[in-house]
Amino acid sequence: MIRIAIDAMGGDHAPREVVLGSVIAAKEYGIAIQLVGPPDVISAELKRNSVKEVLGGRSPESMNISIVAASEVVEMGEKPSRAVLKKKDSSILVATKQVAKGEADGVVAAGSTGAAAVAAQIALGKLQGADKAAICVGMPTINNEPCLLLDGGASVDCSAEELYHFGVMGSVLFKGLYNTAQPRVGLLNIGTEETKGNDLVRDAYKIFSESKGLNFIGFVEGRDYPLGKVDVVVTDGFTGNVSLKTAEGIARMMSQILRQELMSSIRGKVAGIMAEPYLKALKARVDHNELGGALLLGVKGVYVIAHGGSKHTAIKNAIRVAKDMVIANVIKKMEQALKVDSTQNGNGNGSDHNDADSDGKKKVSAAESR
Amino acid sequence: MIRIAIDAMGGDHAPREVVLGSVIAAKEYGIAIQLVGPPDVISAELKRNSVKEVLGGRSPESMNISIVAASEVVEMGEKPSRAVLKKKDSSILVATKQVAKGEADGVVAAGSTGAAAVAAQIALGKLQGADKAAICVGMPTINNEPCLLLDGGASVDCSAEELYHFGVMGSVLFKGLYNTAQPRVGLLNIGTEETKGNDLVRDAYKIFSESKGLNFIGFVEGRDYPLGKVDVVVTDGFTGNVSLKTAEGIARMMSQILRQELMSSIRGKVAGIMAEPYLKALKARVDHNELGGALLLGVKGVYVIAHGGSKHTAIKNAIRVAKDMVIANVIKKMEQALKVDSTQNGNGNGSDHNDADSDGKKKVSAAESR
Repeated sequence: MIRIAIDAMGGDHAPREVVLGSVIAAKEYGIAIQLVGPPDVISAELKRNSVKEVLGGRSPESMNISIVAASEVVEMGEKPSRAVLKKKDSSILVATKQVAKGEADGVVAAGSTGAAAVAAQIALGKLQGADKAAICVGMPTINNEPCLLLDGGASVDCSAEELYHFGVMGSVLFKGLYNTAQPRVGLLNIGTEETKGNDLVRDAYKIFSESKGLNFIGFVEGRDYPLGKVDVVVTDGFTGNVSLKTAEGIARMMSQILRQELMSSIRGKVAGIMAEPYLKALKARVDHNELGGALLLGVKGVYVIAHGGSKHTAIKNAIRVAKDMVIANVIKKMEQALKVDSTQNGNGNGSDHNDADSDGKKKVSAAESR
Repeated sequence: MIRIAIDAMGGDHAPREVVLGSVIAAKEYGIAIQLVGPPDVISAELKRNSVKEVLGGRSPESMNISIVAASEVVEMGEKPSRAVLKKKDSSILVATKQVAKGEADGVVAAGSTGAAAVAAQIALGKLQGADKAAICVGMPTINNEPCLLLDGGASVDCSAEELYHFGVMGSVLFKGLYNTAQPRVGLLNIGTEETKGNDLVRDAYKIFSESKGLNFIGFVEGRDYPLGKVDVVVTDGFTGNVSLKTAEGIARMMSQILRQELMSSIRGKVAGIMAEPYLKALKARVDHNELGGALLLGVKGVYVIAHGGSKHTAIKNAIRVAKDMVIANVIKKMEQALKVDSTQNGNGNGSDHNDADSDGKKKVSAAESR
């Protein structure tokens, strides 16, 4: 039975919505749920009517819902990454350790990506073959499947080879989540010609082109992924973060402008009332991608970071994604794909020269020690 | 009288829509228009009924519409920048030279930013105090004024000081176009704390913070500009291009999804018909920002690049922006602002160390030679 550890204390609506969403997930997916936090707080939440209704008279234990004690909580006011380093018994760190110890198959934590990244670094360590972690975000598209964008902000400075690792991980993930044999992987650039862009993307282009395991479709532009032309879009954490936040801002702007226009006349108001369910459907398709949050990739375990504002449905969706990642065995497959890559491509393809932060030697020795 | 030179042969709808839009602009704004291209082609266009209607029986000459001969045209199939280098008598180069020779106060060219950048480089040269050119794009916001984003793709690798120059030029431009005393200038980053981002933006932050002439509001994120929280958003050409194309893609995606949802049921179709004018108004507000295209900044002249797909109204708007830039005397004011800056900040503030392409020496000597 798949076991998911949940930081019961993370996010704006914790513990209430987190516990409720977890209980619904346990029931709906038939998985074991480990709620991590102060036992008395979680016990009290499990006794609420909303939870009891879901349980339908059964005990939490009989539904494979257990409590894992953690005495500390990363509070709203704290700088999350520093707090995780300081609080050794924080719920997010203890939840992450469940995976490290083999007690759970994946973690779900709502709220700070910074806290999750630090907890993963401390407790899980890096995936073999990946030099940097990446935040993978499901971006809305005109299609049913989202486009996976990575890195969304974990690694601001990347080498060409690290971008390639992101591509490999993203491709494995897309295959696993959406049952697609050959996801289209693209490198984000400012044009589609090979000569466009900066040294980083041109160097990465060479590595991607030579790869045998990826369905690399070349350079893609910022407008291509919302229009469904690519399944996995790879970029450094700086550019990726700007792109995903631009997407968020433009989506909100469009909704606001449309509402302004509809409110500008009587006819508009009537049209607005009639169009309301469709505007809601639009919002739902844009806001809540199927990932239920962001995924932390490049670490040795399934790690889903739900939005800070997650209510129970979003928590349930995040747990579903974690479960699907476990079923698809993505961590093992990512390691295998990265290993094949390192055998094929040798020691970095000479792609490190343009990355001030790169550390060629360390990478080579890491590759040799495998 | 303000004189604007127009590349009559540029863009998908040239020469017809370009000539028509120019004639409307001449009439509406009372400015002199120089149509640049093969005289016989332009003469034929000026004899069309649509143009005659605008002229209302008057001759083009009496409306200060003249033809400037250029025998060559950069064709659709050509690589635009190379074509401009090769064709010395191309309409875009001749139009640009009108400004260089003092025969015109600004240029409008539709189509390729690459061709415009090369033509400007050949004929106009750099603005004193600016080391790199920038494409400035008006991005839609929830407010009436757009946000000026630069660089949109002219300079992929920038130093911190070059970003500062972009900020100075963008601020002068916003003041001139929108009559705002203290435009809010922000640096695009992946978070708003001073410690966020890469070396480039952190170094630039210091220069911006020390500047006395700018209303610097600090780091801004990709979602901030569509929501109207900043007037001028500064970034390198790579990030800027990704951001503006993401914005374009998301806007198109939103429209498509909404139409999909509306078409999904009878009620939706009715709502869609009722909402049609408001959807059109939304599209108009998002698509056609007030700049009528992109502005090429950092060159010694007013340069507006209209969209390749511009019809006459877009051409007219682009000419209006060129005229407004001339009236506001932005080129002179940018040079003055950049000069004040170089006196205040000395030789580059030590900000060049993180830019592989930077050329500190050249910058210093350029500053000294002023």
